[in-house]
Amino acid sequence: MIGDKIQEMFLENQENFLIPAREVAHVQAENNLNHALLVLTKIGFNVIVVLDKEARVSGLISIPLIIEAITGVTEIHFDRLDSLTVGEVMRTDFAVLNDDYELEDLLHLLVDNAFICIVDNEKKFQGIVTRREILKSVNHVAHEFEHRYDVQLHQESIFQ
Amino acid sequence: MIGDKIQEMFLENQENFLIPAREVAHVQAENNLNHALLVLTKIGFNVIVVLDKEARVSGLISIPLIIEAITGVTEIHFDRLDSLTVGEVMRTDFAVLNDDYELEDLLHLLVDNAFICIVDNEKKFQGIVTRREILKSVNHVAHEFEHRYDVQLHQESIFQ
Repeated sequence: MIGDKIQEMFLENQENFLIPAREVAHVQAENNLNHALLVLTKIGFNVIVVLDKEARVSGLISIPLIIEAITGVTEIHFDRLDSLTVGEVMRTDFAVLNDDYELEDLLHLLVDNAFICIVDNEKKFQGIVTRREILKSVNHVAHEFEHRYDVQLHQESIFQ
Repeated sequence: MIGDKIQEMFLENQENFLIPAREVAHVQAENNLNHALLVLTKIGFNVIVVLDKEARVSGLISIPLIIEAITGVTEIHFDRLDSLTVGEVMRTDFAVLNDDYELEDLLHLLVDNAFICIVDNEKKFQGIVTRREILKSVNHVAHEFEHRYDVQLHQESIFQ
């Protein structure tokens, strides 16, 4: 369990955690890799979400996944960009949380995932929470906590 | 200033912060983009460091930077992979800290940078500190702090 007071201060910035879906670039599973690569390059991100027609997240596609898919033993076969689709190459094991997530689950998942997809009860994509926004809260807590609170070792800790 | 007790607990894991240089893939400025792209794809990372012959960091090269450099208005010119070098395309504005860095500076830089290059006094590359390792410490502090310490509002805060 995360401590109550740490959690409270962490969440003072919670309204800024979510980058809403309308600001997050996406592609669809039917798009070919050439299209996905151009979108990824244009926005300068490494990974984007793949949405189905009902705005649910099907997977994630990244530039390394694309390049890996078109790379043979010794060379890159760029002609495969047109023939392969996003659906054939995307990762389907991605980190996702419901929009009423607990901070504890979010912090755990962000250790191994650069961002977390947030969905509503109908699994529709609401946006992403990235390490960047959480690290702003980490800075806030690290700087502010001992200004606001007196912090003393527990008695039992002192005698251990 | 970061609070003393928060900082102390944060740094309990400091020996694991650094991924040492020998475990970090790199390329050189003279390499062509084709080589860099193959290395990036093989290791599955988005960005790697560019070192000079004295093991100093010259810049960073990423798959998006490579693809952007070979992309025209409407299409990607893959033949440019062989003619352009890493040195022509790399970012030279990257985050770097001396190996006696302060936690405060590290936490600030990690908001806008996925990893920080660590160098010694002769500017030689020592390794990187990533958001992943820091987020492990964030989890440790968030879960452990209020177990170890009694936390009470300052008297002046109560009356504000």
